[in-house]
Amino acid sequence: MQEQSHPLLLPGERLDQLNRTGLRIIQHPGRFCFGMDAVLLSSLASLKAGESVCDFGTGTGVIPLLLSSRFADLHITGLEIQSSMAEMANRSVILNALQDRITILQADFRTAADLAGKRKFDLVISNPPYKALKDGLINPSSAQAIARHEVFGGLDELLQSAAAVLKPLGRLALIYRPQRLVALLGGMAAVGIEPKRLRLIQPMINRKPNLVFVEGVLGGKSELMVEPSLVIYGEDGAYTKELLERYDSGAQER
Amino acid sequence: MQEQSHPLLLPGERLDQLNRTGLRIIQHPGRFCFGMDAVLLSSLASLKAGESVCDFGTGTGVIPLLLSSRFADLHITGLEIQSSMAEMANRSVILNALQDRITILQADFRTAADLAGKRKFDLVISNPPYKALKDGLINPSSAQAIARHEVFGGLDELLQSAAAVLKPLGRLALIYRPQRLVALLGGMAAVGIEPKRLRLIQPMINRKPNLVFVEGVLGGKSELMVEPSLVIYGEDGAYTKELLERYDSGAQER
Repeated sequence: MQEQSHPLLLPGERLDQLNRTGLRIIQHPGRFCFGMDAVLLSSLASLKAGESVCDFGTGTGVIPLLLSSRFADLHITGLEIQSSMAEMANRSVILNALQDRITILQADFRTAADLAGKRKFDLVISNPPYKALKDGLINPSSAQAIARHEVFGGLDELLQSAAAVLKPLGRLALIYRPQRLVALLGGMAAVGIEPKRLRLIQPMINRKPNLVFVEGVLGGKSELMVEPSLVIYGEDGAYTKELLERYDSGAQER
Repeated sequence: MQEQSHPLLLPGERLDQLNRTGLRIIQHPGRFCFGMDAVLLSSLASLKAGESVCDFGTGTGVIPLLLSSRFADLHITGLEIQSSMAEMANRSVILNALQDRITILQADFRTAADLAGKRKFDLVISNPPYKALKDGLINPSSAQAIARHEVFGGLDELLQSAAAVLKPLGRLALIYRPQRLVALLGGMAAVGIEPKRLRLIQPMINRKPNLVFVEGVLGGKSELMVEPSLVIYGEDGAYTKELLERYDSGAQER
């Protein structure tokens, strides 16, 4: 369900329904619209009532919005380096009347430790750019390029910042490209965030995964639980039951 | 198909059919019998005609025997530290008249570089013990314990030995426990064997994987191809088509 007109919309923007809880999000089709990766990440990340969460590179704010529907008493901070994106995300927070639970800051996640001060998070979550800067020619001023390429900080900087703002035994949840899994797992371990959960996301049962969900624990013991691969489409070409449940979820947990 | 009596069998041993090519293997049920992991590893490893292969910890010799049926002109060396196992594996080689293609040596894989001298291998393959020595009380003189626990050499020693005997761009193919995937991928990268292929092996579509196949390339570039998860049992409880093909294969390739 889409709307093109609302007092909080700027020209070129539209309003999309996020899930069955009635959450809505402002997006600009010419800039960057959220994808299935953000929805799956928000659904797969381990989360408990009352926790504090920081989203590195929140973009449209889709992850804070989706997380807010999992528990009523979370507090989620979304960091977004692009001021126009941060401003748009903030309007989505206002639109959903979630100002007391979600704070959007225009900020570089590399400065998260300075911003947070002594405050630490239970969970850092991020759907980071997948592509190294060397991969092809990109326009570093484009919102899409910034969301997809490591214009502002690569994987190692993200991991270092996450480790710096997590509580002891706090968690980092990411979705990433399987091609870079070696660097991801090794990089997490190198900053003391031990990978504890891994789940491949495959388009179909016989197709190679194009995404991988990984969750690590700061100071955790080294034993990885690899979960069953999540399959998007069944053999009939329709979404699988699990995918539909994760997409349409949003009912509060517990 | 099993036989209990054959001139090459010692008391307590039996003769098992290995695959459709007519290969047979001597096993001792009181000691260690090969499992599905060895069969899948032999089938999944990348292999070309004419290559030289070394199997670290060959046990009954099952991997050299299965590989020999993929191409006629391989040469495969199997290293086995337990003299009685090495002797039994050698009788299986004789039984199948494969002495010109398979050499079984009673040797510790940690000495592989000394044994090989200037000779290097295209492929090192291993179905190593999965359990660290600290996991529970074990009897270090038991053949089963040696096959399952790192009595003789842990993962890092195996990776170092593999790197020492591989040709440039030679491959290491392993099957391992997903729980230790972080150490496996990191350890491979640390000795210069870049992980290039990864495949999870799941009992069923909705069950977590209990094995992971990984193949790395000495001096390879860092990009991992994660393949579709291999599922053992279908929803009807029967083996999947792929599993049956890999189990019953053995027809020569190309």
